[in-house]
Amino acid sequence: MVKQPAEQSAKKKQNIAINGAGPVGALLAVMLAKKGYQVDLFESRPDSRKTNIYQGKSINLALSDRGWKALQAVGLDEEIRQHAIPMYCRIMHDENGQLSKLPYGKEQQAIWSVSRSGINEQLIDLAEQETSVNVYFDHHLSQLNFADKTAVYLTADKQQKIHQSDLVFGADGAFSKVRRLMQELPKERISYSMEYMPQSYMELSITANADGSHKLEKNALHIWPRKDFMLIALPNVDGSFTCTLFMNQQGEPSFESLNNETKVSAFFQQYFGEAMQYLANPVEDFLSKTASPLCLVHIYPWLVNDSVALIGDAAHAMVPYYGQGMNCGFEDCRVLAELVEEHQHQWPDILESYQQERKANGDAIIELAKRNFVEMSDLSGDANFLLRKKIEAKFHQMHPQLWVPLYSMVTFSPDIPYKTALAVGDIQREIMDEIMQLPNIENEWQQAHVYQTLLQLAEEKLINQQVGK
Amino acid sequence: MVKQPAEQSAKKKQNIAINGAGPVGALLAVMLAKKGYQVDLFESRPDSRKTNIYQGKSINLALSDRGWKALQAVGLDEEIRQHAIPMYCRIMHDENGQLSKLPYGKEQQAIWSVSRSGINEQLIDLAEQETSVNVYFDHHLSQLNFADKTAVYLTADKQQKIHQSDLVFGADGAFSKVRRLMQELPKERISYSMEYMPQSYMELSITANADGSHKLEKNALHIWPRKDFMLIALPNVDGSFTCTLFMNQQGEPSFESLNNETKVSAFFQQYFGEAMQYLANPVEDFLSKTASPLCLVHIYPWLVNDSVALIGDAAHAMVPYYGQGMNCGFEDCRVLAELVEEHQHQWPDILESYQQERKANGDAIIELAKRNFVEMSDLSGDANFLLRKKIEAKFHQMHPQLWVPLYSMVTFSPDIPYKTALAVGDIQREIMDEIMQLPNIENEWQQAHVYQTLLQLAEEKLINQQVGK
Repeated sequence: MVKQPAEQSAKKKQNIAINGAGPVGALLAVMLAKKGYQVDLFESRPDSRKTNIYQGKSINLALSDRGWKALQAVGLDEEIRQHAIPMYCRIMHDENGQLSKLPYGKEQQAIWSVSRSGINEQLIDLAEQETSVNVYFDHHLSQLNFADKTAVYLTADKQQKIHQSDLVFGADGAFSKVRRLMQELPKERISYSMEYMPQSYMELSITANADGSHKLEKNALHIWPRKDFMLIALPNVDGSFTCTLFMNQQGEPSFESLNNETKVSAFFQQYFGEAMQYLANPVEDFLSKTASPLCLVHIYPWLVNDSVALIGDAAHAMVPYYGQGMNCGFEDCRVLAELVEEHQHQWPDILESYQQERKANGDAIIELAKRNFVEMSDLSGDANFLLRKKIEAKFHQMHPQLWVPLYSMVTFSPDIPYKTALAVGDIQREIMDEIMQLPNIENEWQQAHVYQTLLQLAEEKLINQQVGK
Repeated sequence: MVKQPAEQSAKKKQNIAINGAGPVGALLAVMLAKKGYQVDLFESRPDSRKTNIYQGKSINLALSDRGWKALQAVGLDEEIRQHAIPMYCRIMHDENGQLSKLPYGKEQQAIWSVSRSGINEQLIDLAEQETSVNVYFDHHLSQLNFADKTAVYLTADKQQKIHQSDLVFGADGAFSKVRRLMQELPKERISYSMEYMPQSYMELSITANADGSHKLEKNALHIWPRKDFMLIALPNVDGSFTCTLFMNQQGEPSFESLNNETKVSAFFQQYFGEAMQYLANPVEDFLSKTASPLCLVHIYPWLVNDSVALIGDAAHAMVPYYGQGMNCGFEDCRVLAELVEEHQHQWPDILESYQQERKANGDAIIELAKRNFVEMSDLSGDANFLLRKKIEAKFHQMHPQLWVPLYSMVTFSPDIPYKTALAVGDIQREIMDEIMQLPNIENEWQQAHVYQTLLQLAEEKLINQQVGK
């Protein structure tokens, strides 16, 4: 049953429908409820707290400062943190089983491993605790009238349910139905692209030790970088790790070419010999599962009729290589909530500013995430690259304002917009290319003259960049 | 009624369904019929020979050598040429009413103005003359089973009609239904983009003199370049010209900002004062019509299940600034027909090669067409640009193999693939940038030393480019 909103004061208490009760939709519901709105949150799938819709799939996400900042804005950060594991560094496993460690940022800076289903269920619990939020599962959006915001949902028992609201959000993910319905509008000029990556991904796993402890260092993100493909592992609270294999869909080797036990077994032995002692039935898993595609989505506008808007993956689906998909979606919510105050609940202005502010940032993080495959799968095993990181980290300590490494701007600096991080990162790369050309840099990298040159270059090239704007 | 194909020899006489009876679909039907196939050609609109579906719209197209080569391959060129008007040059009209002329190529090289509806109807007539082609109008594709190639059509009288074939082509234009159905397939990984341009377009007209003669020079394409917008005019056989105004949809000035008679009238007087003596009610036309959008479409793959393929605008919609949309579609057909012979009617191989050969060329002409807006609307009124063109034309006469100007590669050189034209054109531009820096070039451009330098640069930079490959 769709409840009627209680009698409300005209402007402020509008009725908002959110499609998609993933982490972004659920957080948005909480935020808008706290701003005084009546919110109806619709999800096409069953309630995962009652039905196991993940079918043994255990996807992990890395929550970082942009995500935390958004959660903090509505006081949800401490609850979520109780089920999250800080990862302070990457640990790279080379083909000989040698390990090397690279901190993500300064001491105590971490990205946090959370379970996709866990955080989603927590956020839905929190949304349901808001008296002005109703959550409807098994509601499949089939039609949307963009003029009067009347939506038609099909329920699990094949009933049609009509729901009318003042504002509609599409928080329904990379394959958004709201977006698809927008694109079918004959008079809107909606530019759109959906780009499939050459790589696909597959979940594998490492179980806990008998005593519940972790088989690999717990507070780290583990990477087995193999250039054209890679395996990663993120820790779970139960002592297990969720692993993801990223590899080309076609070619050699690929998810398509590895099509029998002999080949798959040889592949794992050759490239992941050291990991084989930890992985739980990887060959069996590989042969029984289907790899999932990775794609990028760009769309513009995000907004129709000043009242239907896209948010999260529906507006800007990206690859997972920067761990920013959910963080960016949470940031969308936080910025939107701030604009509600700034524009005093005037929705056309709120949504226009939201689109204006977020579109360029969405584009920027899509691009950064795409580029990061090479960084993770290839460079993270490269001595030269590791040296660069060390020089940057040292220089950052010396000049914490002037030089924030790109990874830190994206991950630990929620006040630096993604688009600034992208632009500044490109200039930093040019500067570091010069530094790496200094004679005998591999031995002299700790010497003062390196940092004098770096300072000079940074002041020359970076000073006009408005970091933090 | 969908006729059953006559009994056919197994491999060769497959039954082919083509969706879309525009110029590309109709030409493809003729070509495949001539290769021995049974062809069913489906069009969602009514038969324009019986119903005026163009509603006074008279769109003109410029047919050039790629188009002619394709028509020639099936012996249709002479018929079409009887209703086409050669345009040997562009005539630019500046804001003071001064005219300047720039030949398209060498003497006797022309692009040909044809009526969109005229050539389409001629090609449908010719398709119907083939005994193995059936044409069905008012057949709206609603479903397509990509496994067994069964299509469901809705007819004008709301009947469902089922049609089964061995191969299916989507020749159904920039907003292709076949393509949309492909994109809905859950397991295909189809990358797609639809990009709207800032400009829209609107048709205007210049009527014939009372004696049926043309008011402007007949054998030319007229351009009124105004930088951010432009007006063009192409001649018709009845003495009229079809004009197109290209302008931004939003901003100043734009189709949206010019929203009343005073503004529109002032706009035309200010920018097109000289043209006002020829244009038939431009202000009235402008206010009563709606501007149409311009968009680019990229998609990959073009092919599903080795048996459903896209062709023409459905595969590669572009902007009209290079006059290549139809020419590229006709070239798709010609190449496909050649591959039918080369691969001896083995369709999986034919379609794979077709996609392989045409995709990169489609991308290249989309890019070239997009860039050409600046060339037409801005540079074509620029003295420096015209000088460049003269130097290139002269050098081309001296070294006809080594240096074919970009416009000629695209328009008059059907043996040079678009992708080669794009790559070589970029190198030529670099070379010409250097030439235009020569001291006093505007006075010395006819002197021998200029062409010696040009020859040296061309031999150095172009020699490894495989023009014609």
